[in-house]
Amino acid sequence: MMSENKVGTYRFVAEPFHCDFSGKLTMSVLGNHLLNCAGFHAADRGFGIATLNENHYTWVLSRLAVELENMPCQYEGFSIQTWVENVYRLFTDRNFAILDKEGKAVGYARSVWAMISMETRKPADLLTLHGGSITDYVCDKECPISKPGRIKVTEKTPVSEYQTRYSDIDINGHVNSIKYIEHILDLFPIEFFKEKRIKRFEMAYVAESYYGDILSFYREEVGEKEYDIEVKKNGTDVVVRSKVIFI
Amino acid sequence: MMSENKVGTYRFVAEPFHCDFSGKLTMSVLGNHLLNCAGFHAADRGFGIATLNENHYTWVLSRLAVELENMPCQYEGFSIQTWVENVYRLFTDRNFAILDKEGKAVGYARSVWAMISMETRKPADLLTLHGGSITDYVCDKECPISKPGRIKVTEKTPVSEYQTRYSDIDINGHVNSIKYIEHILDLFPIEFFKEKRIKRFEMAYVAESYYGDILSFYREEVGEKEYDIEVKKNGTDVVVRSKVIFI
Repeated sequence: MMSENKVGTYRFVAEPFHCDFSGKLTMSVLGNHLLNCAGFHAADRGFGIATLNENHYTWVLSRLAVELENMPCQYEGFSIQTWVENVYRLFTDRNFAILDKEGKAVGYARSVWAMISMETRKPADLLTLHGGSITDYVCDKECPISKPGRIKVTEKTPVSEYQTRYSDIDINGHVNSIKYIEHILDLFPIEFFKEKRIKRFEMAYVAESYYGDILSFYREEVGEKEYDIEVKKNGTDVVVRSKVIFI
Repeated sequence: MMSENKVGTYRFVAEPFHCDFSGKLTMSVLGNHLLNCAGFHAADRGFGIATLNENHYTWVLSRLAVELENMPCQYEGFSIQTWVENVYRLFTDRNFAILDKEGKAVGYARSVWAMISMETRKPADLLTLHGGSITDYVCDKECPISKPGRIKVTEKTPVSEYQTRYSDIDINGHVNSIKYIEHILDLFPIEFFKEKRIKRFEMAYVAESYYGDILSFYREEVGEKEYDIEVKKNGTDVVVRSKVIFI
């Protein structure tokens, strides 16, 4: 197998309604593009949702970490590369590079995925899937950002509450992975994004939430310009955790 | 000038995070695509935002009406055609057709735009712009849906209130046109979208709202499965009006 086939490259343009007040692409839209690229890359190699669904399996995103020097500007072209770094029995690590219009890397991302049975919701063994052929795509391309770390929030008073609505819900009946990013960034006043920019952003997807759930957002400043966030549903179960580091 | 050049056609795929619980593209994402197509079409013909900005003019969306038989499903390809129907001194009518993956029209849209000076915020004369050459693109392609109508809301008690946040705000410092669509559809319980679907959707953009504004949503049932919505900022000024007809 040719090594070039291991890395998928996908082109985008920063659309105006996908940019924030500063004219830069938002993190939630970048997250959407990253997850789409993961889908395209897997589908092109026989591990896409459509193929998996036939066998009643689906990919589940567990962790996402993005670190950036710069975001594409409105109307600017950019591209995303993605490749598989590791395949374990229950998880696979998929990495990304974000390239500016000149092809220079302006950021990287790491993600961790599991595959589950849609019937039992139990994890599937990735090493036996398609006779283990997913491991043929493992690639040692460099991804010079640290792996998603542990996020721990002790704060007991929510900074915000939100009841999930129609536009939060995806085809699985869950709040979609991208909407959490939007809700989490909306916890910060716009001044944060004026004086600073996001250097690193992490998401840990712990459990699903559903239509009508009350999400409580707990935020803690854990370092200079570094915030850990925990989202609970209906006052009890942790749904997602996130880390936002501004610079 | 060849008449084919009057109609622009742009291809899309319904991305998973752009679909709702039913696996169909959401109206807000369709709205985003429509406005992008307007931008592409204008830019390709010398009337795009980039060219206008050099001359300190910009397009302002005044009205949008969308009527559909069907929405594209998750992962399905579809395309959008757009063309200019009329050019008046202060407004231009731009229409759209939404074609399914087989190229069959499943819906149409109408929009009304003005051009304003970014310095004075006053409207510009479209008939003298670029020596009136915008009128060369006027096209009599059929758009078999009715024009945006009058929307009148007398309801005095808001059904919902919302303070605008970071992710609502675009590069102009305004709540972006697409976010209003999302907030308006979120006024309806998900059951509405389960039992029915949106047949026609209208937006009238009246004034701008800004970061931190409190938006109040007034909703009135004006016919069977037909709702008029008015959004006011800070308890006084009308910002947008909308009509949603379910079927």
